[in-house]
Amino acid sequence: MATTGARRVAAEAVGTGLLLAAVVGSGIMGERLAAGNVAITLLANSLATGAALLTLIVTLGPVSGAHFNPVVTLVEGWHGTLSRRHVLPYIAAQAGGALGGVGLANAMFGEPLFAWSQHARRGADQFLSEVVATFGLLVVVTGCARRQPKALPGAVACYIVAAYWFTASTSFANPAVTLARCLTNTFTGIRPGDAPAFVAAQLVGGAIASLLMGWLVPATAAPWSSRSGAGSRPRARAGG
Amino acid sequence: MATTGARRVAAEAVGTGLLLAAVVGSGIMGERLAAGNVAITLLANSLATGAALLTLIVTLGPVSGAHFNPVVTLVEGWHGTLSRRHVLPYIAAQAGGALGGVGLANAMFGEPLFAWSQHARRGADQFLSEVVATFGLLVVVTGCARRQPKALPGAVACYIVAAYWFTASTSFANPAVTLARCLTNTFTGIRPGDAPAFVAAQLVGGAIASLLMGWLVPATAAPWSSRSGAGSRPRARAGG
Amino acid sequence: MATTGARRVAAEAVGTGLLLAAVVGSGIMGERLAAGNVAITLLANSLATGAALLTLIVTLGPVSGAHFNPVVTLVEGWHGTLSRRHVLPYIAAQAGGALGGVGLANAMFGEPLFAWSQHARRGADQFLSEVVATFGLLVVVTGCARRQPKALPGAVACYIVAAYWFTASTSFANPAVTLARCLTNTFTGIRPGDAPAFVAAQLVGGAIASLLMGWLVPATAAPWSSRSGAGSRPRARAGG
Amino acid sequence: MATTGARRVAAEAVGTGLLLAAVVGSGIMGERLAAGNVAITLLANSLATGAALLTLIVTLGPVSGAHFNPVVTLVEGWHGTLSRRHVLPYIAAQAGGALGGVGLANAMFGEPLFAWSQHARRGADQFLSEVVATFGLLVVVTGCARRQPKALPGAVACYIVAAYWFTASTSFANPAVTLARCLTNTFTGIRPGDAPAFVAAQLVGGAIASLLMGWLVPATAAPWSSRSGAGSRPRARAGG
Repeated sequence: MATTGARRVAAEAVGTGLLLAAVVGSGIMGERLAAGNVAITLLANSLATGAALLTLIVTLGPVSGAHFNPVVTLVEGWHGTLSRRHVLPYIAAQAGGALGGVGLANAMFGEPLFAWSQHARRGADQFLSEVVATFGLLVVVTGCARRQPKALPGAVACYIVAAYWFTASTSFANPAVTLARCLTNTFTGIRPGDAPAFVAAQLVGGAIASLLMGWLVPATAAPWSSRSGAGSRPRARAGG
Repeated sequence: MATTGARRVAAEAVGTGLLLAAVVGSGIMGERLAAGNVAITLLANSLATGAALLTLIVTLGPVSGAHFNPVVTLVEGWHGTLSRRHVLPYIAAQAGGALGGVGLANAMFGEPLFAWSQHARRGADQFLSEVVATFGLLVVVTGCARRQPKALPGAVACYIVAAYWFTASTSFANPAVTLARCLTNTFTGIRPGDAPAFVAAQLVGGAIASLLMGWLVPATAAPWSSRSGAGSRPRARAGG
Repeated sequence: MATTGARRVAAEAVGTGLLLAAVVGSGIMGERLAAGNVAITLLANSLATGAALLTLIVTLGPVSGAHFNPVVTLVEGWHGTLSRRHVLPYIAAQAGGALGGVGLANAMFGEPLFAWSQHARRGADQFLSEVVATFGLLVVVTGCARRQPKALPGAVACYIVAAYWFTASTSFANPAVTLARCLTNTFTGIRPGDAPAFVAAQLVGGAIASLLMGWLVPATAAPWSSRSGAGSRPRARAGG
Repeated sequence: MATTGARRVAAEAVGTGLLLAAVVGSGIMGERLAAGNVAITLLANSLATGAALLTLIVTLGPVSGAHFNPVVTLVEGWHGTLSRRHVLPYIAAQAGGALGGVGLANAMFGEPLFAWSQHARRGADQFLSEVVATFGLLVVVTGCARRQPKALPGAVACYIVAAYWFTASTSFANPAVTLARCLTNTFTGIRPGDAPAFVAAQLVGGAIASLLMGWLVPATAAPWSSRSGAGSRPRARAGG
């Protein structure tokens, strides 16, 4: 029991840490090599992030559900698919892991271990983008968890690849990611003063998605998620 | 019943809306960042579109079949795999969702909410390209729906990634997408006067594909689409 | 019977045609847009080809086995997994489809319907590259057909994406493709005089792979290819 | 018995050889075509490597487990999932195959068959990067082998695509690969004097991952890896 709980929390920390190392590290590498063509940097950054996400959800989904994102954890707690006593430990692990991952990426590339970002990201366009980005992410996570659990890792990874490009904010869509990215003064950083609006927008987007999906794909109407081989499906997003 | 019907129609609207946001938004981002190299813009645009398609078909396929495309809906209605009374509501939802998605993309990037495109796309090459693009799409959709339903989302996504590159029109292949893209004066737009020929070409391509596939992969000869675990397969393209 | 045979042959023609349209068309588009950066052209060309291959194998595999390649057909005939009376019709359909696909790509892009390529591709490096490219392709096709049939479409598509980059010839690995690509004077063309050596190298590579795989992954030792749900697996490469 | 053992060892040699041909060959092609933009070279190199990995693990996993990496073989031997008498033959086959693959890539591109690399890769950043890269790889391999064996090939391939970008060393993460890459004086080479530190870092990273995963995803708690259809799962990483 206690061990199982500790494993879940550790999996959230390890997974969020590696995710942040991938996001920040690939941004640094992409910017250093791309000779100033930002589209090439973002192509590398988005593909590396999507590939890392798929890998980490597949690998750690069976342990913790592979949330790596406080909005996902809050929604799962709200829906009752994650026990509420796990919500705070999950979020703490995600925040701690994210900080560790950013420090690791900075260290691998010879940057200061932690440095405040000076990358300004603000305005109505950015706010709307984060609402849309997080709305879409939660639509995908909730819809797949209820109807297509085996396809969830690929769907989430592809969603993020797309959302890096189709939102003006490059789709943070994750409060733990947002806070940690305040601490790298590189391509993927965000100025600390701009982070609160991002987090607020993410909570709004997540709430809208939850309301919509509660009607569109109700949990009780899922005839086959319970039938399909529970043994082999990733317990991604179930967490329970 | 009524709720189920409303869910389906809503899923078509939400899905087509997010698809258009991805198509148009990634085109804007790609063009802004690529420093004039159009191949890099199209690389970003095609990968983002394919990734979004996979995600949306996986997520919403179990609800509505994830058509997001009037040609697909018409063919499904013709084949009887979608009840005919659903055809018009589906198409209306696709058109409405597409318009909403374009507006959302424009808003996220600080463009006018709606603006007529001035991007000329005309001539015999473009017409032939749209016939081929839609023909291929319907071959893939029909063939997968009848023989490989689980592989349909990935196959459709990969088809569109390829078709962005191998047709001279970058493969609209979708009347709802075509009409909505009249309303963004950005990379993925199309001049309103050029849209009718695109739609006509799409209907021709879809009709040819339907005739071919009716013989090549007849619905009645599908021994395993009914056998394979109906519980876990995406009901993509079945709509029923 | 006769209808089934005709369907198979038609599927080989349609599939090879769309494959060639994708190979040649994406090469033209990539070259036109990439502003002289050949790596970007090849990135587009390789991703579009891989995406098209996955789509076409998934879609048409259940009909014909989705060979689209005379070397694959010859090896399947040799191994007895394709009835020998189908070998010549398959190869004829592949050649005809390939020619049609090249013409279609040329037409979509406003090039002459058919034009001899002047793209020189010769020398020991190119010959060795085609031996390696075709060897690898047949290792993948044979190994997957015998042990991992469901994973075959993705494995073949990924192989070709990689082989475009890791062989000096950009991996034609297919005699029908080679002959058809003599008839487009664009990025993916090959000078007719250089084609025979390519085809010879492809036959050598295919033969080496067949000999190796006959020992490494013998057909008779495949315990689960017969057990796993024959109903839902793509009959790719079985053709029978 | 003896034949089965020989097949396994041969599969490790063939697979590691083709992997190295893909790594080194795509690096050469990418550098020659990218007109000096290193990000484009690395994009081609990383995508080709990932695509080749997926293909080779899917194809040869059922024969040998598709380790292609002495660290993986050592960890499997340590965990008892590979018989200890196979450890040395596996590693020898990997080393021999890797050398052959590098020679093949050099030959295909008209480079000297073998040449000492002069590409300096050293320093604390590089050492830390290789620890992280190999740690992550073994987390993925071990976690997937124990809980998600069918998803292993895609997860490993995606991991490597990401790790090429998020580590400062471009993620060698494999002693056989490291040693072989001493022998090509091209994009992916490494100066022989820098190789021992890379190998040491890889062993450290692998050991940390094994310790962590022994607790996080214990072998004995895997309820469904034994239940899920052993017939159709790739025996990747099991080797037994």
